[in-house]
Amino acid sequence: MYYIVVYDIAEKRVNKVLKFMRKYLNWVQNSVFEGELSDGQFEEMKVKLRKIINLNEDSVLIYSMEKKWVDREVIGVERSEVSRII
Amino acid sequence: MYYIVVYDIAEKRVNKVLKFMRKYLNWVQNSVFEGELSDGQFEEMKVKLRKIINLNEDSVLIYSMEKKWVDREVIGVERSEVSRII
Repeated sequence: MYYIVVYDIAEKRVNKVLKFMRKYLNWVQNSVFEGELSDGQFEEMKVKLRKIINLNEDSVLIYSMEKKWVDREVIGVERSEVSRII
Repeated sequence: MYYIVVYDIAEKRVNKVLKFMRKYLNWVQNSVFEGELSDGQFEEMKVKLRKIINLNEDSVLIYSMEKKWVDREVIGVERSEVSRII
């Protein structure tokens, strides 16, 4: 399944979440990750993510799609660093 | 076509972009909008958006999908205000 993850995280936790998310998905833009994951990887990511964020302050929005988007475009500054996969 | 828009806008322009985007799509989370648009509406939105943002500072990421996502879930705080459509 293909996933787009958009998070809204308190400043003090952003770096930790950024580092964590890079192990699973590609960084696209500030607070946006995307990529393909197996069901097992997806479940694992969510379990671990719950432990990293503050469930009462932070918000992680996850879109699941059967297939990748048709098109992705940027208006303004391109901030893609898809190559930065650990 | 179904669209997900994620923007990263300088503080001084965020409210203006927020107000503008609500005329086209549904607010989902801080800096995230989504919804169905015709090709004409989509092109119009992009032309007007280019005039509102600063192309050298701001970044608007637009995903186009043939059909809506399969699932959308939130970990942490649910910030959806889909009802706030003007």
